[in-house]
Amino acid sequence: MDSKALFSLSYGVFILGAKTKAKISACVTNTCMQVANDPVRIAISLLNRNYTCQMIKECGSFALSVLDKSVSFDTIKHFGFQSGRDVEKFKDFEYSLDLNGNPYIKAETCAVISAKVISSQDLGTHTLFIAEVTDAEILSSRAPVTYADYQNEIKPKPAAQKPAQSEKKIIGWRCKICGYELMQAELPADYVCPLCGHPAEDFEPIYEA
Amino acid sequence: MDSKALFSLSYGVFILGAKTKAKISACVTNTCMQVANDPVRIAISLLNRNYTCQMIKECGSFALSVLDKSVSFDTIKHFGFQSGRDVEKFKDFEYSLDLNGNPYIKAETCAVISAKVISSQDLGTHTLFIAEVTDAEILSSRAPVTYADYQNEIKPKPAAQKPAQSEKKIIGWRCKICGYELMQAELPADYVCPLCGHPAEDFEPIYEA
Repeated sequence: MDSKALFSLSYGVFILGAKTKAKISACVTNTCMQVANDPVRIAISLLNRNYTCQMIKECGSFALSVLDKSVSFDTIKHFGFQSGRDVEKFKDFEYSLDLNGNPYIKAETCAVISAKVISSQDLGTHTLFIAEVTDAEILSSRAPVTYADYQNEIKPKPAAQKPAQSEKKIIGWRCKICGYELMQAELPADYVCPLCGHPAEDFEPIYEA
Repeated sequence: MDSKALFSLSYGVFILGAKTKAKISACVTNTCMQVANDPVRIAISLLNRNYTCQMIKECGSFALSVLDKSVSFDTIKHFGFQSGRDVEKFKDFEYSLDLNGNPYIKAETCAVISAKVISSQDLGTHTLFIAEVTDAEILSSRAPVTYADYQNEIKPKPAAQKPAQSEKKIIGWRCKICGYELMQAELPADYVCPLCGHPAEDFEPIYEA
């Protein structure tokens, strides 16, 4: 089985916002599809270790900002490359709240979809949520960005990502997509993250303390 | 709620093949996403009235051909605009069988994914299948076609689709995507299919007999 064949599935890129009694937060996800009409239902899949996944289990609803082709890497980095456990992602970021109280962004976004979870299924690494759409609004006429656009055009090329020369020793590699850590100095060029399936170029070095 | 906001979700386009003891068949679908790793699992959603949906419920597995940007409208039309109940779709069409005996096509296809259903959930209009990937293979280096590519570049524009002048009276309109029939002479320009959510341009006239 060539697991890279799975990369040929097409996705969008979304900011997924949720709330608990304590706080609001959001993450970046690429998995959302409409799965039924009348009523309209969508499915999303989230890594169980993801903080927003835990929030959605608690609050039972979410807001999905559909990012458009104008989205910057900074926005993806802000919502996707750090955890809501560690930072208040909306502290210095303009946002609105939907009718369920979940946060969404309007900038770089062509539509927002609000939904309430009707069922969830634990699939081991991920939880699949089926949710009924309670509200949906078009925010701009710009085309939605695809995950392929993100990989090919928005994400900095490996050369630009290269960390500044460091005297420190590399002791491991961390997947920037899901956080998986491989604790060895060398990262094989054809390495694929065993957790989320992303390639070596999505890993960043972990330096000795 | 503006249901057109749901059109901003991104999808690929796939030929979904299945078998029963009696026959093999396939349909076109746009809904497939990876929902878990270790083991790799994917989700697909199919209209309950779709023949391939019934076949997958019976056989418990399927093969998914990931169409690439070279796909022709004829291929989509062949697999998507007629039912396996009425025609043998693979009769004059080159295909292979995967290890589970399900048919897939290699032409205009960049990858094939074989999967076995591990659970299904009836969502009213559709059934959502979760399936474990049993095999996956890259067939070409061409990029996968997106559903937006299909809508914007592959599907003939309305002018080209216009039926030849007919003396016959139009008595209704049929959605070419899901088969829904609206039995009235006029189709409002902003009409949206109540079953699959597609717009007026995806309807074709039904003439009096």
